Amino acid sequence: MNQEEIDRLCVNTLRFLAVDMVQHANSGHPGMPLDAAPMAYVLATRFIRRDPADPGFIDRDRFVLSAGHASALLYALMHLVGYQEMTLEQLQRFRQWQSLTPGHPESHLTRGVEASTGPLGQGIANAVGMAIAEAHLAARYNRPGHEVFNHHTYALASDGDLMEGVQAEAASLAGHLDLGKLIVLYDSNRVTLSGTTSLTFTEDVAARYSAYGWHVQEVDDGNDLAAISRAIEAAKGARARPSLIVVRTVMAYGSPDLAGSWHAHGNPLGTEEVKKTKRNLGWPEDPPFHIPAEARARFRSVAERGEALHRDWDQRFAAYARAHPELAQEIERRFSAELPAGWDEGLPRWPADARGMATRKASEAVLQALAKTVPELVGGSGDLDPSTFTWLKEGGDLESPARQREGVDGVVGGGWGYAGRNIHFGVREHAMGAIVNGLVYHGGFIPFGATFLVFADYMRPPIRLSAIARLRSIWVYTHDSIGVGEDGPTHEPVEQIASLRAIPGLIVLRPGDANETRCAWQVAIETHDTPIALILSRQSVPTLDRGALAPAEELRRGAYVLNRGEADPELILIGTGSEVPLIVAAEPALRQRGVRVRLVSMPSWELFAQQSAAYRESVLPRAVKARLAVEAARSFGWERWVGPDGDILSVDRFGASAPGDLVMKEYGFSIDHVVARALALLERLTGPLPPTSPSRGS
Amino acid sequence: MNQEEIDRLCVNTLRFLAVDMVQHANSGHPGMPLDAAPMAYVLATRFIRRDPADPGFIDRDRFVLSAGHASALLYALMHLVGYQEMTLEQLQRFRQWQSLTPGHPESHLTRGVEASTGPLGQGIANAVGMAIAEAHLAARYNRPGHEVFNHHTYALASDGDLMEGVQAEAASLAGHLDLGKLIVLYDSNRVTLSGTTSLTFTEDVAARYSAYGWHVQEVDDGNDLAAISRAIEAAKGARARPSLIVVRTVMAYGSPDLAGSWHAHGNPLGTEEVKKTKRNLGWPEDPPFHIPAEARARFRSVAERGEALHRDWDQRFAAYARAHPELAQEIERRFSAELPAGWDEGLPRWPADARGMATRKASEAVLQALAKTVPELVGGSGDLDPSTFTWLKEGGDLESPARQREGVDGVVGGGWGYAGRNIHFGVREHAMGAIVNGLVYHGGFIPFGATFLVFADYMRPPIRLSAIARLRSIWVYTHDSIGVGEDGPTHEPVEQIASLRAIPGLIVLRPGDANETRCAWQVAIETHDTPIALILSRQSVPTLDRGALAPAEELRRGAYVLNRGEADPELILIGTGSEVPLIVAAEPALRQRGVRVRLVSMPSWELFAQQSAAYRESVLPRAVKARLAVEAARSFGWERWVGPDGDILSVDRFGASAPGDLVMKEYGFSIDHVVARALALLERLTGPLPPTSPSRGS
Repeated sequence: MNQEEIDRLCVNTLRFLAVDMVQHANSGHPGMPLDAAPMAYVLATRFIRRDPADPGFIDRDRFVLSAGHASALLYALMHLVGYQEMTLEQLQRFRQWQSLTPGHPESHLTRGVEASTGPLGQGIANAVGMAIAEAHLAARYNRPGHEVFNHHTYALASDGDLMEGVQAEAASLAGHLDLGKLIVLYDSNRVTLSGTTSLTFTEDVAARYSAYGWHVQEVDDGNDLAAISRAIEAAKGARARPSLIVVRTVMAYGSPDLAGSWHAHGNPLGTEEVKKTKRNLGWPEDPPFHIPAEARARFRSVAERGEALHRDWDQRFAAYARAHPELAQEIERRFSAELPAGWDEGLPRWPADARGMATRKASEAVLQALAKTVPELVGGSGDLDPSTFTWLKEGGDLESPARQREGVDGVVGGGWGYAGRNIHFGVREHAMGAIVNGLVYHGGFIPFGATFLVFADYMRPPIRLSAIARLRSIWVYTHDSIGVGEDGPTHEPVEQIASLRAIPGLIVLRPGDANETRCAWQVAIETHDTPIALILSRQSVPTLDRGALAPAEELRRGAYVLNRGEADPELILIGTGSEVPLIVAAEPALRQRGVRVRLVSMPSWELFAQQSAAYRESVLPRAVKARLAVEAARSFGWERWVGPDGDILSVDRFGASAPGDLVMKEYGFSIDHVVARALALLERLTGPLPPTSPSRGS
Repeated sequence: MNQEEIDRLCVNTLRFLAVDMVQHANSGHPGMPLDAAPMAYVLATRFIRRDPADPGFIDRDRFVLSAGHASALLYALMHLVGYQEMTLEQLQRFRQWQSLTPGHPESHLTRGVEASTGPLGQGIANAVGMAIAEAHLAARYNRPGHEVFNHHTYALASDGDLMEGVQAEAASLAGHLDLGKLIVLYDSNRVTLSGTTSLTFTEDVAARYSAYGWHVQEVDDGNDLAAISRAIEAAKGARARPSLIVVRTVMAYGSPDLAGSWHAHGNPLGTEEVKKTKRNLGWPEDPPFHIPAEARARFRSVAERGEALHRDWDQRFAAYARAHPELAQEIERRFSAELPAGWDEGLPRWPADARGMATRKASEAVLQALAKTVPELVGGSGDLDPSTFTWLKEGGDLESPARQREGVDGVVGGGWGYAGRNIHFGVREHAMGAIVNGLVYHGGFIPFGATFLVFADYMRPPIRLSAIARLRSIWVYTHDSIGVGEDGPTHEPVEQIASLRAIPGLIVLRPGDANETRCAWQVAIETHDTPIALILSRQSVPTLDRGALAPAEELRRGAYVLNRGEADPELILIGTGSEVPLIVAAEPALRQRGVRVRLVSMPSWELFAQQSAAYRESVLPRAVKARLAVEAARSFGWERWVGPDGDILSVDRFGASAPGDLVMKEYGFSIDHVVARALALLERLTGPLPPTSPSRGS
């Protein structure tokens, strides 16, 4: 066989493994694997530098199948190039219970899958995050004669990806940042789930990407391996711009009856059409899952090439480690996700202070301290640094070397190039989320993304994906309640805390004062494999007197008794965030009425739920029915903690535009109202209290 | 004064009213009003056709301030042109408790405000929806010699709007649809909240919009009224394409110290800088809120022009009504939001059927029937018609007349032009949401937008805004649980139902069988001023035997007792959606064990919460502690209904990729497991049950 014949054989092997997988499962998406197999083949055999024997190899090229519905193609490829766990049996168990070959790729499940994709548009934005990661690490760690970071990020995307807003946001930022090592192949088959793109998607994608500053090429024939290869070469050559390669393909290529049809997007071809397609492309109808020996050999050579590349890098890294032992150690530490020794020494501690500070402000101070000891801490906000207070003052701006500045308007320090640790995401919350996830997928980072809590709504999909894929993404949400004030209901979160708590596997932390904020950041930095949402106030909150109350470190347990002296409470006040100081302030008036009141700070339902039943009972004893939760957010879900006899001081309608302290008061978040609600609750459950009873009960 | 002087005076009147409002409130965004006042002035005085005396005038031009943070400019303008409620006192109560001048515009609060904006990008997409509305109504109702619909939609947008993904999605669709009466003015001041756009936003916006197929112009000097005017004229002339006018401005124009600075984006200028700015632009420092008589007169002429235009339209509409009385009646009915007589006669009813059908499938049948009687029912999906079953079979595709087709691939019927009622939103869920809201804002529509439930996450902001602004948007979410199966966790909703329930003012309806689905649609069509989310199954569910059980119409009450015979229950099973037939199926085994079991179908928490306490007690008597909720979604919030002694059969982790029935079973949604859980609950609360006890208790 000549090379051309072998190439064709290999492409068809990919095609029909995928088609057989879908048919065997009687479920899946055969159309794109049929048309995109040539791209996958060219990428895998000629470009992508990976070692299937060690999928975690640090300087590997990253590959993201943004069109996650074409997963069969990815799994088939992984099997052929020798990912050990991706056995033929796994291909035959495509989309079956507990297989490694789920309907859409899942990075935490299947070694070698770089990103959990499927929700469209996410993968492109993840890839932008990976390319940022590479550029940053190269700028930080490479030294003359030592290029330990030098890899590309490839993504394969579909029409659907190119329609999603998150893609547009990410592509705009990638163009701004001149991410030259990012190469996106766009499988333009012009067919979507419900029809052809002529129904709704007729923009000039190539011109749009040019407008973003990308290097754009078009390949007219998606079966032309040489043309695809040339385009990728040219894309690699365009070092100062990210590349889009628009590859014209025919959905379900080779299928006599379904080529070009949306019916082949998301449905198996059917056994008859599979046969016809195989005949049409000169493939044996039987057996299914056929892998010709020549194809196997060709794909094996990919593994060998990858192993050699890996060995070469190991040697180069060893040389680097001899020349720059500390840097090498830092790289290894970062990729092993271990924290540096002493990382949390010297974090700020605050004395009691009745005026206090906003928890976003405390967060700023903690972040600055962490930035000094944790170099992998990198992040930014959706154009809100002056409000979220998340700018790392000594971190520099991450920017294109072509755009390095001396500083803009006194706010930002320039000149860092890609070594900067502050990413200006722009008003692009959705892309921010997916890019932060991309940094985690890449490895070597503890990244954060910040915006106002109400705008967490703009980035729900990447928050969810960070939980599904078990990523250590840190989401920082400030301006966390109607305390926002004048900006009004569109800017005042009400239901966001509940809707974040509803996401399985996400830890939501709403610290109650400056010192709890420090501890919340410690939890966020330490936690592996779990995303964290930090919920911070816009307005100042008193810094509690920890001499009189339990230490803020108890935040780790999710909820804890603040005023430990009260062993036999008849009433429990539970607060979170800015409402913790409020319940503390309400306590004296309740005591004066003789009420034995316990105060509970409850920064995290999720952490509390993880504690032992005994601990939970010790904080919220079942016997105490009079429980009042105080949180300036929807009551939704609080019944779990206050029980049927409890009460919830909450916000169950949208907010209002007025000064924040007034809005809080009008919505009932005042000392007097907390006291009144607490007394009313107690009276409802235990009968009238005497008008003033300095010591009642015990 | 010559015209030029009057123009300058008027522009400065706008500027300083806005600046004084912000300063008086000591809160707000002065930068954009200073630079965008010329655009607002030109639009209001030379183009926008509105009647301040009747803000609801049907054929008015629509104006959307997408950059809602510049609300002071809008309110100042509304005051000057004579919106009755927009008094000077309201300007002085900017951003204060219960004023009509909140921090961001709120359409349900302030007459004459067309859309609730503030969250960036939404307004542009709302405007696309309004332009679609106009095009559709014109195509449906205009007749030769009678142009009763012929208005423009204008939007004023900022850099932040142009960065958001929702804007990109909506602009792509607007270009595809050739919405020639949509004109967006882009106030390109290149300054955002946190710095200049050079930090993160350097794409070529004009080229991008050209790539979408828009008509694009640039105005170099945002103070050049004539140039702005010419550009708008040219945009109006470009009838076959939507228009973007990029207007170069200087943030906080006129401020000696803050012009061009991000500091002026979101902070008051300060009293000193206000003085300096006034001096700089030749404005008296005192008094604040100064309105020169000449300016007042000029703006009054706008009102007079508007009144005349309105009278003219009234006359033309009267002539139309004489020529086409039925059409005119239909228009008036649609804009008064009244339903046609007999609209819900002839909706499908289904007999009991053990195999049943997916509720998405029942929804399809109901939709087809409704489409016949309710012409204002218009909508579409995010590229999922063949899966959401929301295509109106006799409605035709809404498409550009330039693109009218004979039908694509056998799926869609072509040839309808803008008169089509099916909107192909593309894989653009976020824009879909904002466009549907735009249709409601426009008036005359009962619109819906459909996608898979898991992708509701892509469109949280417009869902929230539909609730804030009290819009009758209908959100249709199919594939509502882990029953989705093979597509796996990224496509299986788990927390979405809870996170929708968490939105204040949104009614979530998850019907339990085909007949409940009919009733759910009836509620959705009837409900004014409240958005509805319909949650529908992918998989078939049995159609319940309504002879033996309560009628499906009781869905209106949110929750109801299915098996009415059991007056003295010891156990209550509560189900929603596809789990209602499951609890029905579990009943016989429980009865066989002698358990007095009540079955409750609970399609809507919100509707149930609206019922009287007596009704709620009659459905869920407080005395019955043994309650098991069965819902294939997160348990989050169910404690409210099952109480502390109850149990919840739920999904508190992410889903899995495998055939849907198997996933359901593995996650515990089987008859046997429901029975076992119910018995275990009962035994926990009331002690061991006898092994088999054909009749226990009563």
